[in-house]
Amino acid sequence: MEQSGTGDRFPVVGDGSGLAPDSGFYREEVQLALRNRGMPLEGMRYPITPTGLHYLLVHFDIPDIRSADWRLKVGGLVANPRSLALEDLKATASRTVTVTMECAGNGRALLNPRPVSQPWLVEAVGTAQWTGIPLRRVLADAGLSKDAVELVFTGLDQGVQGGQVQYYQRSLTVAEANREEVLLAFEMNGEPLQPQHGYPLRLIVPGWYGMASVKWLGSIEAVAQPFNGYQMAQAYRFSHGADDSGEPVTRIRVRSLMIPPGVPDFLTRTRLVAAGAVTLRGRAWAGGVSISKVEVSADGGARWHDAQLERETSVFGWRGWSFQWAARAGRQTLMSRATDAQGNVQLVEQPWNFQGMGNNMVHRVEVVVE
Amino acid sequence: MEQSGTGDRFPVVGDGSGLAPDSGFYREEVQLALRNRGMPLEGMRYPITPTGLHYLLVHFDIPDIRSADWRLKVGGLVANPRSLALEDLKATASRTVTVTMECAGNGRALLNPRPVSQPWLVEAVGTAQWTGIPLRRVLADAGLSKDAVELVFTGLDQGVQGGQVQYYQRSLTVAEANREEVLLAFEMNGEPLQPQHGYPLRLIVPGWYGMASVKWLGSIEAVAQPFNGYQMAQAYRFSHGADDSGEPVTRIRVRSLMIPPGVPDFLTRTRLVAAGAVTLRGRAWAGGVSISKVEVSADGGARWHDAQLERETSVFGWRGWSFQWAARAGRQTLMSRATDAQGNVQLVEQPWNFQGMGNNMVHRVEVVVE
Repeated sequence: MEQSGTGDRFPVVGDGSGLAPDSGFYREEVQLALRNRGMPLEGMRYPITPTGLHYLLVHFDIPDIRSADWRLKVGGLVANPRSLALEDLKATASRTVTVTMECAGNGRALLNPRPVSQPWLVEAVGTAQWTGIPLRRVLADAGLSKDAVELVFTGLDQGVQGGQVQYYQRSLTVAEANREEVLLAFEMNGEPLQPQHGYPLRLIVPGWYGMASVKWLGSIEAVAQPFNGYQMAQAYRFSHGADDSGEPVTRIRVRSLMIPPGVPDFLTRTRLVAAGAVTLRGRAWAGGVSISKVEVSADGGARWHDAQLERETSVFGWRGWSFQWAARAGRQTLMSRATDAQGNVQLVEQPWNFQGMGNNMVHRVEVVVE
Repeated sequence: MEQSGTGDRFPVVGDGSGLAPDSGFYREEVQLALRNRGMPLEGMRYPITPTGLHYLLVHFDIPDIRSADWRLKVGGLVANPRSLALEDLKATASRTVTVTMECAGNGRALLNPRPVSQPWLVEAVGTAQWTGIPLRRVLADAGLSKDAVELVFTGLDQGVQGGQVQYYQRSLTVAEANREEVLLAFEMNGEPLQPQHGYPLRLIVPGWYGMASVKWLGSIEAVAQPFNGYQMAQAYRFSHGADDSGEPVTRIRVRSLMIPPGVPDFLTRTRLVAAGAVTLRGRAWAGGVSISKVEVSADGGARWHDAQLERETSVFGWRGWSFQWAARAGRQTLMSRATDAQGNVQLVEQPWNFQGMGNNMVHRVEVVVE
């Protein structure tokens, strides 16, 4: 099992186009949804998501790592290659950053036609307090060469994707890697990482979609050329089709979500709401950019009203919002949309792309008021 | 929002028959799969499932409960009605029980035709150490009347199911409720319950499918007649069709699962395995009954070989097994089946029923050996 191709020995899902021809979901998509969990939207009531409610995407399997055997290797274009034990990393001053993390594929299954992969609707998000040591300090200690242009981060999770056997690998430019808030994290919400969140050590890249925050980190290698591994050059691209290499996915686009009011119907999740005054609440975020406005519509997008914003606690974390709604009897569609400090705003129309990346279209919640 | 019917004001999924006409999954099923999470099968490597990896089914929303305001009411046919704070319950001697819990609907989405509900494949399981006080002690303190035949447990999670607005409610007979291992649990794996697992207090009924272990417990009421609420009389039945009331779902049926060997393909989860000696591992359990045998087939069920059983640690917990497999190149279907001490054995054929309950058919794992 080298890092090599597997040819066509694996089954194909659907017609092989990568897109679903109709509204029915494939069993393989359901299978992924059962492994990779979203945050139930009522989880937004907590400023910090309880660890077990944070969204989770695991490309391959959760690897079986014993921390006594584990080492982080720092090599490539560095003056002093390192092999660091967890205790070495914990021995120096740590830093804690509050980060809203979102999967780049959040919203994929709302697209039409639907790219076939993990079928997120809107729930692939969560906010945690990550504690670790700044990556820049480890790079400085290792003596990063001036010839290095990127750092390659290799996770210890192995599998097959796009016909290639691979460890999960992503890179960052030297400039991004040296941002002061980029961490090598060993704690989530004050506890050692859970196995599924990257134990014993993971990268945290605040402001970027989750694919950058490599879990189960095994090595960091400084390289002289941009890294062209599968997860950089083929996956995580904004592209128009199978033959378009497209643009890389990087920072999180502006988005808001609403805690669905009232109570749900078990199967459809349609909400039953009592008529009268209802306080709608939710959260909004954009990757490393402040939220400047959240608006709510209670008539399917015909009219929009400003929501009240709570105080911003971290530019990398979500910001709470609320809106007083006078609910009248009938079936309604509630929507929320956010605008960030750079003027980016969520759209009602889908921003379609071939891999289903960065779909931040406005959140819709169907309610029955009575 | 009384506990009442909602008529036909909620949308219908599919053709209204409750069964899916073809292999495509509905968006509502995917939506449920993203909220209600399975245990990734590699999670079976841990004898006690890390809390965030344990399966989870939430019928409605996770309720927002502050323990300072919360009380457990014990009433109905008792001499001394109680209103107990969490501290009252924690003040007496506690007990810890290791319990493998499984959703009654585990395996539903493998059935053909497929009942439309939470679309579990095989992963709705987990094992935890639950700590709390024996229910029988609370019932004795309250002075349970001899006229009581059942206890009704009401959770604080509210919603609509089967057209009825309801709190989640289940009952147990007095005899079942007085089993010494039935707990009112306030800790999971040595920590206070996570919000999604029933904080601050839940019922734990070892040996029964998960629907009996009511989360977010608000009250216990002793009643003189069998309770006929929705979750007893309509949901959680082994029935043949919409007009058949069927038999109640109770104890967990015998089942084994295998940790898929090798590494996965991202989308299909088909496994890539290196040819040669492979140790297959898994777990097996039956509700409160010992496991007497686990067998493995590497040829799609033509021949079965005894696996090696690990020591049983709790009759309510799963039991580890292993099998030495000589993997030869090609595409293979691995299977495991368990037999319990009462002689019940998993079948290769589906045990179909209208609600998709208790489908313990043998686990199949597709592998490509090279």
